[in-house]
Amino acid sequence: MTLPAPLTGVVPPVCTPLTPDREVDVPSLISLVDHLLEGGVDGLFVLGTSSEAAYLTDRQRRLIVETVVGHVAGGVPVLAGAIDMTTPRVLDHVRYVTDAGADAVVVTAPFYTRTHPAEIARHYRLVAARSPVPVVAYDLPVAVHSKLRAELVLELAAEGTLAGLKDSSGDEGGFRAVVTGARAHPRFSVLTGSELVVDSALALGAHGAVPGLANVDPAGYVRLYRLCREGEWALARAEQERLCALFGMVRVGDGGRMGGSSAALGAFKAALHLRGVIACAAVAAPQIPLSTEEIEGVGKFLAGAGLL
Amino acid sequence: MTLPAPLTGVVPPVCTPLTPDREVDVPSLISLVDHLLEGGVDGLFVLGTSSEAAYLTDRQRRLIVETVVGHVAGGVPVLAGAIDMTTPRVLDHVRYVTDAGADAVVVTAPFYTRTHPAEIARHYRLVAARSPVPVVAYDLPVAVHSKLRAELVLELAAEGTLAGLKDSSGDEGGFRAVVTGARAHPRFSVLTGSELVVDSALALGAHGAVPGLANVDPAGYVRLYRLCREGEWALARAEQERLCALFGMVRVGDGGRMGGSSAALGAFKAALHLRGVIACAAVAAPQIPLSTEEIEGVGKFLAGAGLL
Amino acid sequence: MTLPAPLTGVVPPVCTPLTPDREVDVPSLISLVDHLLEGGVDGLFVLGTSSEAAYLTDRQRRLIVETVVGHVAGGVPVLAGAIDMTTPRVLDHVRYVTDAGADAVVVTAPFYTRTHPAEIARHYRLVAARSPVPVVAYDLPVAVHSKLRAELVLELAAEGTLAGLKDSSGDEGGFRAVVTGARAHPRFSVLTGSELVVDSALALGAHGAVPGLANVDPAGYVRLYRLCREGEWALARAEQERLCALFGMVRVGDGGRMGGSSAALGAFKAALHLRGVIACAAVAAPQIPLSTEEIEGVGKFLAGAGLL
Amino acid sequence: MTLPAPLTGVVPPVCTPLTPDREVDVPSLISLVDHLLEGGVDGLFVLGTSSEAAYLTDRQRRLIVETVVGHVAGGVPVLAGAIDMTTPRVLDHVRYVTDAGADAVVVTAPFYTRTHPAEIARHYRLVAARSPVPVVAYDLPVAVHSKLRAELVLELAAEGTLAGLKDSSGDEGGFRAVVTGARAHPRFSVLTGSELVVDSALALGAHGAVPGLANVDPAGYVRLYRLCREGEWALARAEQERLCALFGMVRVGDGGRMGGSSAALGAFKAALHLRGVIACAAVAAPQIPLSTEEIEGVGKFLAGAGLL
Repeated sequence: MTLPAPLTGVVPPVCTPLTPDREVDVPSLISLVDHLLEGGVDGLFVLGTSSEAAYLTDRQRRLIVETVVGHVAGGVPVLAGAIDMTTPRVLDHVRYVTDAGADAVVVTAPFYTRTHPAEIARHYRLVAARSPVPVVAYDLPVAVHSKLRAELVLELAAEGTLAGLKDSSGDEGGFRAVVTGARAHPRFSVLTGSELVVDSALALGAHGAVPGLANVDPAGYVRLYRLCREGEWALARAEQERLCALFGMVRVGDGGRMGGSSAALGAFKAALHLRGVIACAAVAAPQIPLSTEEIEGVGKFLAGAGLL
Repeated sequence: MTLPAPLTGVVPPVCTPLTPDREVDVPSLISLVDHLLEGGVDGLFVLGTSSEAAYLTDRQRRLIVETVVGHVAGGVPVLAGAIDMTTPRVLDHVRYVTDAGADAVVVTAPFYTRTHPAEIARHYRLVAARSPVPVVAYDLPVAVHSKLRAELVLELAAEGTLAGLKDSSGDEGGFRAVVTGARAHPRFSVLTGSELVVDSALALGAHGAVPGLANVDPAGYVRLYRLCREGEWALARAEQERLCALFGMVRVGDGGRMGGSSAALGAFKAALHLRGVIACAAVAAPQIPLSTEEIEGVGKFLAGAGLL
Repeated sequence: MTLPAPLTGVVPPVCTPLTPDREVDVPSLISLVDHLLEGGVDGLFVLGTSSEAAYLTDRQRRLIVETVVGHVAGGVPVLAGAIDMTTPRVLDHVRYVTDAGADAVVVTAPFYTRTHPAEIARHYRLVAARSPVPVVAYDLPVAVHSKLRAELVLELAAEGTLAGLKDSSGDEGGFRAVVTGARAHPRFSVLTGSELVVDSALALGAHGAVPGLANVDPAGYVRLYRLCREGEWALARAEQERLCALFGMVRVGDGGRMGGSSAALGAFKAALHLRGVIACAAVAAPQIPLSTEEIEGVGKFLAGAGLL
Repeated sequence: MTLPAPLTGVVPPVCTPLTPDREVDVPSLISLVDHLLEGGVDGLFVLGTSSEAAYLTDRQRRLIVETVVGHVAGGVPVLAGAIDMTTPRVLDHVRYVTDAGADAVVVTAPFYTRTHPAEIARHYRLVAARSPVPVVAYDLPVAVHSKLRAELVLELAAEGTLAGLKDSSGDEGGFRAVVTGARAHPRFSVLTGSELVVDSALALGAHGAVPGLANVDPAGYVRLYRLCREGEWALARAEQERLCALFGMVRVGDGGRMGGSSAALGAFKAALHLRGVIACAAVAAPQIPLSTEEIEGVGKFLAGAGLL
C-alpha cells in the first residue's frame, strides 16, 4: 500500500518474539501483530530498535518483513528499518525489505564511522534516490551518536528526500523546530519516539507516535492519541501518566547487572509473555535476560496499570 | 595458515581500493597487498576500520577476503574484521570470512545498542565458541562508544576466549595494564592501533602494531619495529617522529567540510594513488572526497617524508 | 521575604549588564530589573548561567545581589545562584548571597570533579543544613556534566532538603517524572529552564519557568504563562511559537567563530541594548563579542517579534 | 624564586591534608612537603586537582600557598593552581596565590561554560598579561570537558603566553605533538600528568612529570626520572611497572559506591596516613570516605610495593 502522507497516529515499533533458541517465533509474531491491530494502531514499524534489529541476521530480518506484510495484507502501512552503518549497507537492506513488501523504510544517520552533517545529507539523498518507497529519518543519538539537526531535516523534507521523521532524541526544542517548520511541507510526517511525552508532542503539532511501550498496551496509546486529537487535554494527561507509570517496568532490570537495552526490551517481552501475547520472553544474544524476580516485578507494573 | 601465538610485528589494516563507481578494485587491492608485503609486514588485517569495512556490502567483504587470502597464499597470516552490531550478525560475518580463508577474526564490542561489560564478555564467549579461528578483540571506543576494560580483556585472555587485542583506544594506561597482565598468557598478542606511539607501545612490551598509515609507508613501520626490537631507541624515536609528521596528512581535509573518517581515509588513499600503488583514490559513500587542492596537500606530506 | 511554597510563574534568570571595561553596570541592572517587573514577572533569579555567574568575581556577585534585592525591596522573591565546584565553596557563596538578602539559593551538582549520585545527595544535604534560606536544585548537564535523576530529586524533596528544581536538562521524560512525583510534596516547586517548551511543561504540571529569553521579552513569557493557566492552549501555543522564533537570535553568532555561551548571551544582551534597556551589550571575558553584522541580525529577530 | 625554564623533573601535585573537621592541617601539610623534598622532587604543585583545589575555599587556598612557600623557602619552585571557571575568577586566584608567593600559576581552559578554541586562547592571553609569574596550561578534559589542541598550545608557547603544559589528557598522540613541536621553544616545559606512562613520556622527550601518586612514593618517581635520564630503559620500565601496581590503590574504592575522585584521593590520603606522613586521611565534602576495609586494601598495595 502507499504510505499515507502525512503518516499519522500510533505506529508501534513491533517487538520480535524469539524462540528459546533465538529464532524468530513466527506464530508469536503474528499474535503480536493481531494484538496491535486489535488495539487500533495506525501502522506497524518492524526492524526498529525495539524490534532488536541490531541483533537480527539478514535472514531473520527478511522473514519478519515477509511475515508481517503478508499478515496485515494492506490493512495498515508497514514501515521497515534498514538499520546499518553506512549507505552501501543500508541500500542492501532497503532492497531486501522492499522486496519483502515494506511500504516505507526507516533509516538512521551513519554510525560506527565519525560522520558529518554533509555526509548525513548525502547519505539520505543517496538512499532516497535508490529506494522504491518513501524514506523516514530515524533520529536516535543514543545509538548512532550524532543528532539530526532540525535545519537538515527540514531541508531534506523540502526537497522531497524524506517523507517523515521518527524523533527519539529526547530533544524537545529541536523536535518542536521540525514540527513547526514542517507545516510548510504538509505531506511530511513528524513522529515522536517517546513513550513519556506523547501528549506534549501531539499538543505542539506532531503527527503521531512510535512508542515501544505500545507493544504492551497498544489500546492505551491509541486512546491517548484520540484524546489529544479531541482536545481532551486533561484526560489525555491522565492516560499519559498511567502509561508513564507502566513504563517504569524498564527500570526493573536496570540495576547495574545488564545494559539499558536488555532491561527495556526484556521488560517489554516479559510483559507480552505475561499478557499471553507471545510464547517466550527471550531476548537476542548477547543481552542478559531478566531474572524470575525481575519478571515478577514487570508483572506488578502490568497489574498496576490494569493489564493483568 | 595457523595464526602465530603470539602474533607479532607490523600488521597493517589494509585499505580497500575502489573503482570510480565504488566497486572493489581487485587489481589495485592485489597491488596494495604486494606493496605491503614488499615493505616487510608480518600479517595483513582486512575489513577493519581503515579498510572502510563499515561501508562495504557483504558481497564486497567476501570478495576482499578471497582476493587477499588467495594472493598471499599463506605467506603471512590474514586477519579479517567481522564488524557488525551484535553477536548474531557478527557470527554471520565470521562464517563468511572464515569460509573465504581468514586465519583469524577481529571483533569489536557490541555497538548501536546500549551495552554492558557482562554483555561484552558474553558476546566474545559466544563468538569464540562458534569461530573456527582465533578471535582478536578490537578496542575502538571512538566507533563503538564503549571501552574494553583491561580486567575484562585479561579475563578473556586467561580463559582462552581471546587470542589478542588490537587497542585503538588511545588510553595508554589501560593498554599498559593489558600488556603487563598478559605476560601471564604468553600466547596472547597485544597490538597497538596507534600510528603515533608505536615506539612507546613496543617499549612497554607490546607485541606489534596495526597502524593505518602503514598502508602508505609499510617499510617505515617495519623499520621502526626492527629498531625497537634491537633496542635502538634513539633511532626508533627519529623514525617514529618522521612517521608522525607524515600522519599530518589526515588533517589536510579536516577543516570542517567533512568527517574525520573521510579526512583520514581520503588522505591514505590519495597517498597510495600518488605513490602509484592504487588506480583511484575514491572513498565509499557517503564520505566527502578530498578536493584537488587537498590531494596536493597530501602530496606535500609524502614529499616531506621522502616518499615521492 | 519568604519564598512562596511552591514558587510559581515566570522567574527570569537576570542578565548582568556590564560596562565597556567589564564592571557591573548598576544603573543598567536596575533598568533591567524594572523592565522585568513591568513585564509582570513573579520573581528574579540572579547569578545564574544567563547572568554570566561563571564569569563574575565574588565582589561582582555580591554587588549584584545587593543591588537587585535593594531595588525590588520585597516586591518579588529574589533567588541567587551559588554556583561553584563543590560543597565548601558553594557554602561560601550561600553565605555571601544570603548576607546580601537573597530569598533562596540555587545550587548545581558538584562539577569539575568526577562525582556520584551519593555525593550529589550529600552535597545538597550539607548545603541545606547550613543555608538560612530554601535551596533550589539546578539541573544543567551541559555545564556540570552530570544529570540529577528524578528519584534523587524526589527523595531530597520528600525530606525537605530541596524547595524546588530548575530543570535545564532538556530531558522531558525525567522532568515529567519529577512533576508527577512532586504532587506528593505540595510545597515543592518544579520549574523548567527551557525557552522553547514552556507550554508543554506547564501543561504537564510544572509550576513555572526560568527562561533566559524572558530578559528580552518578559511580557511575552508572562502572557504565555497566563494563557496556560487559563487553559487557552491554542493561544498559548501561538505565543510559545512566537517566542521560539525570537529565540532564533541565539544562532546568529553560532557559526563556528565563538562558543555557544557567547552566542546566546551576546544575543540577549544585544537585544536588551537595542531595546534601550541596558547601556552596553558587552559580555564578560573571555567570550567573543558579536560583530556589528551579527548585532543587526539580532535586531531582525526583535523586529520579527514586534519588539523594536 | 624564578621558575626554571624549562621546568624539569618530578613535580608532585601536593595533597591537602585535612583535619577531621575539614580544615587545612598545617602541621601535616608541612610534614608532607618534607616527605616530598626528602624524596628528591624538583618542585611542588599546590592547589591542583590532587590537592582537592575544587573543594577548598579561597581562605584555605591562600593558607596552603603561604604555608608551602614559607616552608620550602626557595628550595624548589612552588607552582599554584588558579582553578576556576573563567578569566575574571581565575585572575582573582592568580592575585591571591602570587601575593602568597607562588612562583608560577597553573590554569585550565574555561569550564562550566560552553567554550571554544578562540575563547581558550583569549583566556590564556588575558591571564598571562595580568600574571606576575609564568603561566602553565593544565589540560584535563575529564574535569573541564574540552581538550587543549596541540596547535593551540604551540601557538601560545611560541608567543610567550605559556611557560609550559601539564598534560593530564591521556592523549599520547597529542602529547607527542606538543613535545616535538616545543623543541622550537627551548624554554617551554612539557610535563605529563600521568602516573602510568612517565617512562614513555620521558622517552619521547617530555621534561618531567606531575603524578598524583608521587605523594605516596616520591622517591619512586624520582628514581624513575633518573633512570630515564640515564637511558636505563629496562630498569626504568621495571620501576614504572612497580608504580603502576601501586597505583591500583585508586580502584579499591571504585566499586560503585563513590565517584572516581573520592576513590583516588581517598586512597592517596589513606596511604599517606598509613605511612605516617599525615595525621588524618579525611577527604573534603561531599566526597564519600573509604571504609575501614578499603583502607586495609590500600595498605596491601603499600605492602606490595615495599612501602610499609
